[in-house]
Amino acid sequence: MRGAVLHGPRDVRFEELADPTILEPTDAILRVAATCVCGSDLWTYRGISPVSQPTPFGHEYCGIVEEVGRAVTDIRPGQFVIGSFFASDNTCPNCRAGYQSSCQRAELVRGAQAPRLRVPLADGTLVPTPGSPSPERIPSLLTLSDVMGTGWFGAVAAEVAPGKVVAVVGDGAVGLLGILSAKLRGAQQIIAMSRNESRSKLAREFGATDLVTERGDAGAARVKELTHGVGADSVLECVGTEESLWQAIRSTRPGGHVGYVGVPHGVELNAQELFFAHVHLHGGPAPVRRFLPDLIERVWSREIDPGKVFDLTLPLERVADGYRAMDERRAIKTLLLP
Amino acid sequence: MRGAVLHGPRDVRFEELADPTILEPTDAILRVAATCVCGSDLWTYRGISPVSQPTPFGHEYCGIVEEVGRAVTDIRPGQFVIGSFFASDNTCPNCRAGYQSSCQRAELVRGAQAPRLRVPLADGTLVPTPGSPSPERIPSLLTLSDVMGTGWFGAVAAEVAPGKVVAVVGDGAVGLLGILSAKLRGAQQIIAMSRNESRSKLAREFGATDLVTERGDAGAARVKELTHGVGADSVLECVGTEESLWQAIRSTRPGGHVGYVGVPHGVELNAQELFFAHVHLHGGPAPVRRFLPDLIERVWSREIDPGKVFDLTLPLERVADGYRAMDERRAIKTLLLP
Repeated sequence: MRGAVLHGPRDVRFEELADPTILEPTDAILRVAATCVCGSDLWTYRGISPVSQPTPFGHEYCGIVEEVGRAVTDIRPGQFVIGSFFASDNTCPNCRAGYQSSCQRAELVRGAQAPRLRVPLADGTLVPTPGSPSPERIPSLLTLSDVMGTGWFGAVAAEVAPGKVVAVVGDGAVGLLGILSAKLRGAQQIIAMSRNESRSKLAREFGATDLVTERGDAGAARVKELTHGVGADSVLECVGTEESLWQAIRSTRPGGHVGYVGVPHGVELNAQELFFAHVHLHGGPAPVRRFLPDLIERVWSREIDPGKVFDLTLPLERVADGYRAMDERRAIKTLLLP
Repeated sequence: MRGAVLHGPRDVRFEELADPTILEPTDAILRVAATCVCGSDLWTYRGISPVSQPTPFGHEYCGIVEEVGRAVTDIRPGQFVIGSFFASDNTCPNCRAGYQSSCQRAELVRGAQAPRLRVPLADGTLVPTPGSPSPERIPSLLTLSDVMGTGWFGAVAAEVAPGKVVAVVGDGAVGLLGILSAKLRGAQQIIAMSRNESRSKLAREFGATDLVTERGDAGAARVKELTHGVGADSVLECVGTEESLWQAIRSTRPGGHVGYVGVPHGVELNAQELFFAHVHLHGGPAPVRRFLPDLIERVWSREIDPGKVFDLTLPLERVADGYRAMDERRAIKTLLLP
């Protein structure tokens, strides 16, 4: 088969790869129905987190189970499934606490930008849909593998609840789905931070009530203005830079909650300033597995349509164009169809 | 009157000062019944946070109201009161959210190591005791002004609750009272970290079930060992150094809570490591005012005796000796009696 491989900065190739096989008795092999390009992989794509050798790329996936190892008991061939980008056994103490992305046996899924994919710990990682989805619902189901689950975790970590005032830093796909998540969780006011027309439009559609175009401290100052000088109750940080993290912290009221889901790169937080900011800080790699059953139900019942973040659809063999479009911010998120 | 003034590193003088007077109509003047030396002031005492001019010292206090400004309506002369080290109006949005130490009108109280003290925002800051306390209960009431309220906030911020496994980093007075607070809040297991005999003894007395003598990463590794490889549910950080903060974070299970109340000095937190640690982080200057009514009741009913942290009592004029004893770790905490 042919799949995406990252060779170096901005060098993604669609090339011949060995077909995946069952390596562990807990594995499953999927036929991938859809995959996509993740904003977090742009760090690697741009060479900021370099790779030492050619690396199969992609970690968001859904599809049909083709084969399972002999220790797999719950997942069966023929099921349509979605799994997290972190494989997890879903039985260890960390999984039972709802932190499957810190599973004691956690393993990153990779090589999802290919027609077939090996998923470790299949019983713990994969969740079947209630039936065979119609093609138009597949993009929304795919988002639950990472981007929607991550936006949702941002809202959970920021303790978004009915009546709260929320701000969202970052207008990428995670930020936009963070807005949708905040809306679903009953936020009263949702301040989106964006200066991009198409993203602002989608932010509004997902539930943003206010738009702030300023960034950094000026952005935080605008949030304070919009909240009678107090700050937001809950702030989602969906970027991962020093500027965005402080923008989030300084936008939050004392005692409020920052949910940070942008993977921080090169950020050192001055602990004394954080201390006096008096905020709650929680985040990390989203334990997507925790949210899958609930979010599948919401997509299945057409309550939500998170697949709207895909504004570019390409055949899988054009994966390199998909990365380029996101790198240049021409696309919010690229859907890839094998 | 004579009171304590810090002139420079390790230079505390007991010298003539103007008697405090009502400056704002919301002020009160107290006759100080007892005051003490705070561990957080050792940063200033040691010159790590230098003072630019001679500064009246001390911010922990309780005593009898002598005089109030014309805008003070709830607090009356003759009452025995305790107040936070941060004056607060107790009416602004931050106060109403329970974060009185981030009051929009917050003002640090200073000059408490003197026979008389001006307290701003008296109605918002001071809480009267149910009656006139007997002298032996005054030390415990005094701790509510900061050190016990801070240990308590550490336990609240770390979400200590019945059945939880707790670790406490720091064996100073705040850490020890953090142990007492964890016990009161129903912790099942309390791992104290100390290598000092008298402090370990008091830790046991306050409720510690395990003692760890290792520090830093070795200390965190011991906590992991004691918790079946998972980490503690709740960890209180009561020091403020880079080592102690990471010790706390690395002792916490994914999804667990770190309550940090040691004022961080020169600490830069790598946000990516924090991200993957998956912990909740909350802390800051303790909103002592929030806890005063409850903690006064607990002292008044003799449920708790936090005054046990005072292992050195000196007349106020020997305040310099009190600092020296704490600086050299000969005393856990010095009580000063005018």
